[in-house]
Amino acid sequence: MTTPTLLVLDAEPLPRLGRLTGRARIEHADETTLAERLPHADVLLVWDFTSHAVRQAWPGDGPRPRWVHTASAGVDHLMCPELAESETVVTNARGVFDQPIAEYVAALVLAMAKDLPTTLRLQGERTWRHRESLRVAGTRACVVGSGPIGRAIARTLKALGITTALVGRTARTGVHGPGDLDRLLARADWVVAAAPLTDDTRGMFDARRFGMMQPSARFVNVGRGPLVVEDDLAEALTRRWIAGAALDVLSHEPLAADSPLWRVPNLIISPHMSGDTIGWRDELGAQFLELFESWAAGEPLANVVDKKRGYVPGH
Amino acid sequence: MTTPTLLVLDAEPLPRLGRLTGRARIEHADETTLAERLPHADVLLVWDFTSHAVRQAWPGDGPRPRWVHTASAGVDHLMCPELAESETVVTNARGVFDQPIAEYVAALVLAMAKDLPTTLRLQGERTWRHRESLRVAGTRACVVGSGPIGRAIARTLKALGITTALVGRTARTGVHGPGDLDRLLARADWVVAAAPLTDDTRGMFDARRFGMMQPSARFVNVGRGPLVVEDDLAEALTRRWIAGAALDVLSHEPLAADSPLWRVPNLIISPHMSGDTIGWRDELGAQFLELFESWAAGEPLANVVDKKRGYVPGH
Repeated sequence: MTTPTLLVLDAEPLPRLGRLTGRARIEHADETTLAERLPHADVLLVWDFTSHAVRQAWPGDGPRPRWVHTASAGVDHLMCPELAESETVVTNARGVFDQPIAEYVAALVLAMAKDLPTTLRLQGERTWRHRESLRVAGTRACVVGSGPIGRAIARTLKALGITTALVGRTARTGVHGPGDLDRLLARADWVVAAAPLTDDTRGMFDARRFGMMQPSARFVNVGRGPLVVEDDLAEALTRRWIAGAALDVLSHEPLAADSPLWRVPNLIISPHMSGDTIGWRDELGAQFLELFESWAAGEPLANVVDKKRGYVPGH
Repeated sequence: MTTPTLLVLDAEPLPRLGRLTGRARIEHADETTLAERLPHADVLLVWDFTSHAVRQAWPGDGPRPRWVHTASAGVDHLMCPELAESETVVTNARGVFDQPIAEYVAALVLAMAKDLPTTLRLQGERTWRHRESLRVAGTRACVVGSGPIGRAIARTLKALGITTALVGRTARTGVHGPGDLDRLLARADWVVAAAPLTDDTRGMFDARRFGMMQPSARFVNVGRGPLVVEDDLAEALTRRWIAGAALDVLSHEPLAADSPLWRVPNLIISPHMSGDTIGWRDELGAQFLELFESWAAGEPLANVVDKKRGYVPGH
């Protein structure tokens, strides 16, 4: 086998890539050079997972990479009809983000329950003002998205004594189907969006769904920004249809400084950081190197994305 | 049995006290009238647990209440030598605060791990700045105080995957003795103070102990303010001996607006609210009524405080 060409779409350096020296010809691309270099690559590593360049640059026909790996859980940023219909295998970073994101959701849920944003604001004003807060044990959560991230979130919330229902694309043991969603939303204290972005999930959290939630309900999005109709969420919070929300992902990232979302009442905005714990880039790099070993040995790859569905199918 | 006199030291109304109508003669006192009314009372209910009036007003000899109940976990605010040496039984609100305080500690630990105070500050500045945060699973906690509150904290932190050691006054199964404290502090990522305030624990978190913690360690106090030498903590944070801290209890409450503590870097200050979830006053009221039934029937009381030690002994 000739030395394969590994094309890396990167914005920041990838740790430990040097281990492939002699085993792959490593080339780098950015958004301006990707289209030109893509046809000559055997493997594309989408290290800069914030880029949407792959969709634009993917060759309609002719030579193209046989394998694309993205260092992200979602694949919505690179998927296009030509890639979906090609024989190219797509893999993702399934597994790396599960526990960190679950902890991040627990942090947001507890911060909202204990009214921590108000405490920090009052501290800034040097004001001691006792308030009663919410006990989370015994409350109810509905987690939308039954992949490894959604399941890790459900495990963590259950460990805090929260009765938690998981909703996925298809009903199975321990997972509700979409037909149960509205009923579960209507009685949830916490609604967590952790689904992949697909044609089915885009805009699923809209005025109708916020309107059916309890006035005391709080909403968290750690999936993808466009799962939520952001204007509808802003209205739901302003009119107090629901009590609070936290968005770690936004439709347009980074969120523009002049966006009205920054100042919506009872909304916490964080910069798409829920999965990114110290050492995460090392973990992503190690995961790619492991997959590369399988690929080079002609073995089946783990984490293969169902390109039509837009995620790795499984339990 | 003649109708007993129940004297209530209150600042706010006690829910459901009306249930005792006809079974007790209910009188009320505030800090100015307590000394005068105390000798005529059979039972004293310290509903205003922020008051230190009992210590001053307790009769040296002569008639005094046979039973004192405080609607708090700590008894440091009412204990004095005369009360400790008397035959008066003292009970506390053991049990009501365990789960709420454990959740509050989890909220603080996760908020510090996920750098939520910075996120909220940046949101106020309309600034999107991605940062890496800390994974709590696999970190180590040391919880000082092995009563029901400390044990609930340990259970909750363990449920988040944190390796947690409990330190109590005496070593027993699952609890380290004081001789292990410094060794455990030196390797902890999270140090949680949840001990009662006694002669042994006053000022136990001082410059020496902050100095032996890891530079990455974070400290949380949900016990009593004077467990901590606050000036030493301020120095430890300012000089970055430790990475962060959260105080829900302070030596002087409410904390004065001109206290320098409000602005110590990486310090979260909250107004003694960790145990006070919605409905807590109802729970405290119901707990007292249940104890009153036992007392009126001449049965042994639950939650009896060892007045010399200053807490309810037991597992």
